[in-house]
This record gives sequence, C-alpha cells and structure tokens, in this order.
Amino acid sequence: MDMDSKYDDLSAVYINCTLTKSPAESHTGNLIEVSRKIMEKQGVATEVIRAIDHDIASGVYPDMTQKGWETDEWPELYKKIRVADIVIIAGPIWLGDNSSETKKIIERLYAQSGDLNDRGQYDFYGKVGGALITGNEDGVKHCAMNILYSLQHIGFTIPPAADAGWIGEIGPGPSYGDKKQDGTRVGYDSNFTNRNTTFAAWNMLHMARMLKSSGGIPAFGNLPKQWEAGTRFDFENPEYR
Amino acid sequence: MDMDSKYDDLSAVYINCTLTKSPAESHTGNLIEVSRKIMEKQGVATEVIRAIDHDIASGVYPDMTQKGWETDEWPELYKKIRVADIVIIAGPIWLGDNSSETKKIIERLYAQSGDLNDRGQYDFYGKVGGALITGNEDGVKHCAMNILYSLQHIGFTIPPAADAGWIGEIGPGPSYGDKKQDGTRVGYDSNFTNRNTTFAAWNMLHMARMLKSSGGIPAFGNLPKQWEAGTRFDFENPEYR
Amino acid sequence: MDMDSKYDDLSAVYINCTLTKSPAESHTGNLIEVSRKIMEKQGVATEVIRAIDHDIASGVYPDMTQKGWETDEWPELYKKIRVADIVIIAGPIWLGDNSSETKKIIERLYAQSGDLNDRGQYDFYGKVGGALITGNEDGVKHCAMNILYSLQHIGFTIPPAADAGWIGEIGPGPSYGDKKQDGTRVGYDSNFTNRNTTFAAWNMLHMARMLKSSGGIPAFGNLPKQWEAGTRFDFENPEYR
Amino acid sequence: MDMDSKYDDLSAVYINCTLTKSPAESHTGNLIEVSRKIMEKQGVATEVIRAIDHDIASGVYPDMTQKGWETDEWPELYKKIRVADIVIIAGPIWLGDNSSETKKIIERLYAQSGDLNDRGQYDFYGKVGGALITGNEDGVKHCAMNILYSLQHIGFTIPPAADAGWIGEIGPGPSYGDKKQDGTRVGYDSNFTNRNTTFAAWNMLHMARMLKSSGGIPAFGNLPKQWEAGTRFDFENPEYR
Repeated sequence: MDMDSKYDDLSAVYINCTLTKSPAESHTGNLIEVSRKIMEKQGVATEVIRAIDHDIASGVYPDMTQKGWETDEWPELYKKIRVADIVIIAGPIWLGDNSSETKKIIERLYAQSGDLNDRGQYDFYGKVGGALITGNEDGVKHCAMNILYSLQHIGFTIPPAADAGWIGEIGPGPSYGDKKQDGTRVGYDSNFTNRNTTFAAWNMLHMARMLKSSGGIPAFGNLPKQWEAGTRFDFENPEYR
Repeated sequence: MDMDSKYDDLSAVYINCTLTKSPAESHTGNLIEVSRKIMEKQGVATEVIRAIDHDIASGVYPDMTQKGWETDEWPELYKKIRVADIVIIAGPIWLGDNSSETKKIIERLYAQSGDLNDRGQYDFYGKVGGALITGNEDGVKHCAMNILYSLQHIGFTIPPAADAGWIGEIGPGPSYGDKKQDGTRVGYDSNFTNRNTTFAAWNMLHMARMLKSSGGIPAFGNLPKQWEAGTRFDFENPEYR
Repeated sequence: MDMDSKYDDLSAVYINCTLTKSPAESHTGNLIEVSRKIMEKQGVATEVIRAIDHDIASGVYPDMTQKGWETDEWPELYKKIRVADIVIIAGPIWLGDNSSETKKIIERLYAQSGDLNDRGQYDFYGKVGGALITGNEDGVKHCAMNILYSLQHIGFTIPPAADAGWIGEIGPGPSYGDKKQDGTRVGYDSNFTNRNTTFAAWNMLHMARMLKSSGGIPAFGNLPKQWEAGTRFDFENPEYR
Repeated sequence: MDMDSKYDDLSAVYINCTLTKSPAESHTGNLIEVSRKIMEKQGVATEVIRAIDHDIASGVYPDMTQKGWETDEWPELYKKIRVADIVIIAGPIWLGDNSSETKKIIERLYAQSGDLNDRGQYDFYGKVGGALITGNEDGVKHCAMNILYSLQHIGFTIPPAADAGWIGEIGPGPSYGDKKQDGTRVGYDSNFTNRNTTFAAWNMLHMARMLKSSGGIPAFGNLPKQWEAGTRFDFENPEYR
C-alpha cells in the first residue's frame, strides 16, 4: 500500500453552488463535508465557498465592476481559487441539469482561462478538478459531465472517477442529509456514494501530489504565446504531408 | 523548456468511430493523422482502430458471443487497448451528438470497467484519455464532453485540454479534409484546430509520461476489494459526526 | 372531462433500443407495455420494434446496402415508422447516456429527414414523438433530452411531458421489472413512473388526434423547396432593417 | 397554401438570457429581432424580456423574497409569461453550454410548474415553446436541447424544428450581428439561420393557433389532482397483468 506520500502542503477549494442561502442547510454542503473530512485528515487546507452567499456578478470578465456592475465579490474570492491545488465544483440538480450558480461559477472561471502562469501555460494547468452532485432523483452524471468537461477544457487535470454524488429513486423525495423518521439521514448509508466520494477524494489527492511534486504539467507543446509566435511543437500542417 | 523527457516507451490507440467503412475517406481519420504524427515523432507506438470496419458486437459484456452473438471482434481488439498508455476516442457528430459507433465503443469499454489491475485498482487507472471530433457545423464540445466523462468515470486520467476538433459555420457544408476548388483542404488551415490538436497531443504525452514514470495512480483510497472488505481510507460515516 | 375524441384511427410505433436480444427480457420492454396498453385501450394500432433483433445497418443513408453493407433491414422497418402517427423511442441508460442502438435509430431517422410529404414539408411533420427510458440509477432526463430534441429537430411535434421512465437510487441495483424476493416487480409500484407514463401516453394521443384532425401542421412558412426558390414567408433580412 | 389562419390574437414572449446588460448590444437580441419581426407581421403581440437587466433572484420558488431575498422582480415579470401563448428562451453559448441566466430563468419557470390551470392541468399546458441560440463557434444544439427539454417537461408543446441559431466556424471569432469591415453584419447572410429562424417562427405560430383554437390540450389523462385521487385514465398496474 503506497501511502508514503504527504499531502499537508496541498490546498483544496470546494465551491458549493446550491441555490439555498445560509443559514439554511445545503444538501450539497452535506456531501462536501464527507469529502472534505478525508482531505483534512491528510492535512490538506480546505475551504468551502458557498457562492449564493456572496455577491458574485454574472458575466465572462474577471471583474464585472468594469462592465457596469456595481459590485462583484468574484475578484476577491478568485484569489483563493487561484492558489488552490484542487478545485471541486459541487452543486444541486434542477430539472436534470446544473444550477444557475454552477453555471455562473463556470463562466467566471472561464473568464480567467486566458491568464498564463509563469511558465507560459494557461493558469489552471497544474490544478486538479472534481465534481460533487446531490439531487433527489436524476442527473448526477449529466451535471458532473458538464463540470468536469469545463474544468479540463480550461486547464485542469481530471483524475480517475473524480465525480461522486447522491440521488434517490425516480420521483419527488428527500435529498441527501434530510432527516428520516428514525433519526438517521437520507443517503448517509449509501455504500455507493460513500465509496465514490472517498475514491474521488483520494484520486484528487494523488493527482495533486503528483502534479505538485513534478512542478505541474511540463511546459512544452502547450504554450499559447509560443504557438502564436510560430513555434509548432512537431505539429505538421496536414496540407503538406 | 522542459522536454528532456522521452516518450518512446509509450503507446497510443486511436479509436475512429466514423460511420463510414473503409476504403472511403473518414474526416475524423484526417484529424487523427494530425494528432498521430505528433505522437509518432516522439517515438510513441500508435495504432488506429476504425471500429466500423470490424465486426464488433453491441452490448455491455466483455465477450458478446457468450450472449447470443455469433461473432464479436471486440475481445481481440481490446487486447490492444488494454496495453495502451493513451486511448483517444475520435468520432463524427450526427444531429449534434456522438455517433452510434462511439457509443458502442464506450459501452464495450464500460463492460471492462470492473476489471482490476494487479494492484487492485480498476484496470483503466494509469491510462490517459482524450477525444477528437469532426463535424460540419455544431457539437464538438457536446460530443467530447460525453467521451471524456465516460473515460474518467471508468478510470482514465484526463489531462488539460484533452479535446480538439473541427466544425464549420452553422448549416450544411464541407467537412474536415474535403477538397476545396483551389485544391486545399477544408479545416487544414484552422489555427484553432491545429493548436488545440497539438496541445491535446502534448498534454496526453506529458500525463502518460508522468503516470508511467510514477507507476500509475497510487494504490490507496481507490481499491474496490479493500473497500468491500471494510477498509475505509479515512472515510468517516457522516451519520456519526 | 373532454374525452369525446376517438383515437382508433391512430397508430403508434415503439422502437425498443435495448442492447439485449430476444428472447431475454428487456426492462425497457416492460415499460413500453405499460404505455402501449393505454394506447391499445383506445383502439390505437401499436407495434414494437426491438431494434437489436433486426439486422439494421449503421449509417446516415436511407439504404445502407448502397453504401457497402451487405444487408440492411431498415428500409423495410422504416415503412412502418413512416405511416405511424406516434413514434416513441425507448431505451436503456448506459454510463448515463443513450445506448448505441438508440443512437443508431436516431441516425437512421435523420437519414430520412430530407424526405418531403405531399405538401412539401419535411416528412416527419404531423407526427408526434415521445421517449421512454429505463435504467438502474441515473440518466432518464439526459437520455430523453437527446431523443426528444432529435425528434423535434427533424419534424416531430413533442407534446407536454412526453418523457417517462424509471431509475432506482444511485448505485448498482435492480432494473425496471426485475423480480423482488416477495414476488413483486421493481418499479411497478412507482407512482411517479406510472403517472408520468400515463400522462405521456395521453398527451401523445391528444396531440396526434389534434394534428391528424387538422391535416397536420399548416403548410406555410415551413416549405424547404419554396424557400430555396426564393419565397421568404415574411422573413426580412436583418441587414436591410 | 393554407394560411387562412389569423394569428393576431396570439402573444409571444422572448426571454433574452444574454450576460450583457443594456444598453450594450446583445448578439442574441439581434436574432430575436429576426424572429419577432415575422410574428409581428402577423399581428402577434410580442415582448422581449432581457433577464440580466432585471433584478431576478435565483431559486426554485415563485417569490424568492419569501426565502431571504430582499428583492425579486420575477413575480412581476412572470405575469407576462403566464399569459403568453408562445414562450421563446433565447441565449448565448458559454463553454458550449447555456448561460447562467438561461438556467436561472428555467429554474424560475420550473418553480411555477406545479401551478394548475382552471381545467386542472399544469399551467404551461397549452403554451408553445421554442429556443434561439447565438454563439461564436459551437453549441447551438446542446443549448437548445436543454431548453426545449425543460419546456416540454413542464408542459409546453414543442412544434417541429422549434430551434434556430447561429455560430461561426470553430475557434474565436465574431458573433451574430457584429459589423464586418465591409459594413455588413456577421451571420445575417446565413441562409441556414434565416431559414431555420423563419420555419421555427411559423411552426410556433401554427402550433399556438392550433392549441388556442382547440382550447388547449384536452383535459383527460393529464390531471394531477385526479390521479392523486385515484383516477387512472386506463393505466393498468403492470403487476396485475
């Protein structure tokens, strides 16, 4: 069992995209805690941002106050995300799809996707992404699919099985963490959810460890400014083959 | 520029999920060649499987001849996929979605997703996945989203920006590699497609190198048999918090 | 209660896109029977095509024997679909998405989407579409979304709530119609599935009745040949506004 | 040519889900005008709601001021949507998916989806839905798929080919209506976009006419309160077959 690794220099940010403002309970928040606990036991510095509690503007620019919005907490919140090794987007399912808060966060991350790191790669290179989803009946994969795609597209690495979630049987019903009559909580005994949340957490840890120890993704073949300047990294124009 | 790495011990399999049988030209095949050339220049052993040319049964079992199909080439083809470091699913877009061949291949990979490697992880752990998509007008992201999600879900690692493709302006029109009147070929001059295909190839190479040199994803926290036997890898039942 | 209508001149075709060949039980087939029974009680002529039992070629042409396939049952099967008032695509969920058989059927329907009816509209105009999905844990909406989109895009009308399905709680588990230890069958007591399947069936009946009695969708503003010949149906080029 | 119908008693609401606040130009707004012009020539009363210009709360309740939000313009805006015969959700594409504004509007519509009309059907029954999408490179079908699915799921009828849009070739580029150097505007000469926008508008008109003249969807087999009270509308429990 190879767990000689240390993880206590890593940090993880969970973005909870529930539509429910604090202090009301967030079902997604319940699942985040399961994942977070595992990371914290390894000494990972974790933080949860509950997006709806913040005044985050809508748009695709780094600071929307420059686009007619009076206020925008994103630039401040983004500082935390920028330095995290692991970013997990977590959210609810509405009508089978991600919430508007999830989409807003993805839009704001996208707005930063042209930033470069000091090696000339897109700034998200070297970070690890994951997804946690809760709903009452249908859509974990649909929602995770979009989140993980978006993250990898802008530079995150997605380790194996980086998505986990809970849903009940089809139809209206309780959500993850709702109290049952016998006092236990819905979904907490789901072996599938518990296992997948655990595996996802560990795979994110392993990948973040590997990337951090390697100094990120090697900086060759993925440098936009060099490409623009004419470097082709062994690409051969198919026209001339 | 850190490119001291060697890649010539790596292998990559491209699965071309076009609906067009050989010897007719495959637009997706044209894009595969661009990616493949880059890998081959690094000494990577590559292979292209054009699924529609093979007698691959439909289903979710490793060998469909045991489920009423007279023949099934999959078990033989899968031997090549099983030993590859990089697996790229490439395909066309029809009505905005992946082709039925793409889905058939994903189903057959899914059928193998319970296999374990000699460390007790799911067998796809340690492999890198990517997607290449061609169409005439719309759907690269939709198709790549499903392919990359499926691959990561069953154990592949998805490196940054692991998807590339080509589509033209909305409406009917020529596809990638079709000859234009001036003799040049459609899409071959797309700076965006050329760049993304190059970056995707390199990011897959970097990640495959990193994983192979590290001996794969560390085997802790992601071992189904140990979980089944009661090991919890720091997972704490939320009921007892 | 306005149910003076008669429906016994209508016909409905269910296309079962299970990956399981006859005679093995199809979970999707179990749900089809629930919907079909309702239609038959109104005198609707129904037929179920289990795609996997037929030798249907892959591709996007009406007859694939003209594209290098030795055999293709589609042209014969399509005759039944062509005259149906209601077409329901039903299928299983694999890795959260439609089966390869579902995609193959959509591709073949798409291949017919340029055909015109005798009024000059696309040939599927006047038909009603629906979706039925079964799985064991996740994806009813994702799968129905793609089916219904595809159908409306090529000319079908989608009535309210035209999708129904069954899935269980997240994780591996039994599928719709599997026998439980007490002898009852999984999902058959789902009030949600029963209600939605019923409402979907009736809404398809109502819409098919309405369309058939009205002589289909009025033939104005939707005639491709007239558009091609220059008729603009009140469209005004935004350039000249 | 059957266009004896009158449409001047109909009303249509376009919801523009751009992320750009007024007075800046909205590319999606440009396409809305093309569709709207066609409807207005038939005497249809049209209205465009640009969501981002309004203080619409996020959530899944009809009035979010009852859930801790200080203000919420939705209840006022919804009055217009409630009486419209046709509702078209229009929006941009970001990272291949619908905007957060589009999702917010769908969530708010979903919050009303339990309301009943005076015949006991869900309140959206009898209304017609459509989608218009603009982007610069990829995702019209993906976005329309989700919008149209959501609308039909909550009670709208989707007529044939109810989606239209514009995107350019893959990669960064201008959007619909951007001025070109020669003074013309991007996409305005797209025969495909013009035709599809026209056909979509007419099919929505035809379907709205048909539904309004028929008094909506017949009220049988789709009445939630009656189902709850035990009426089964010919549904037969599969357990007892």
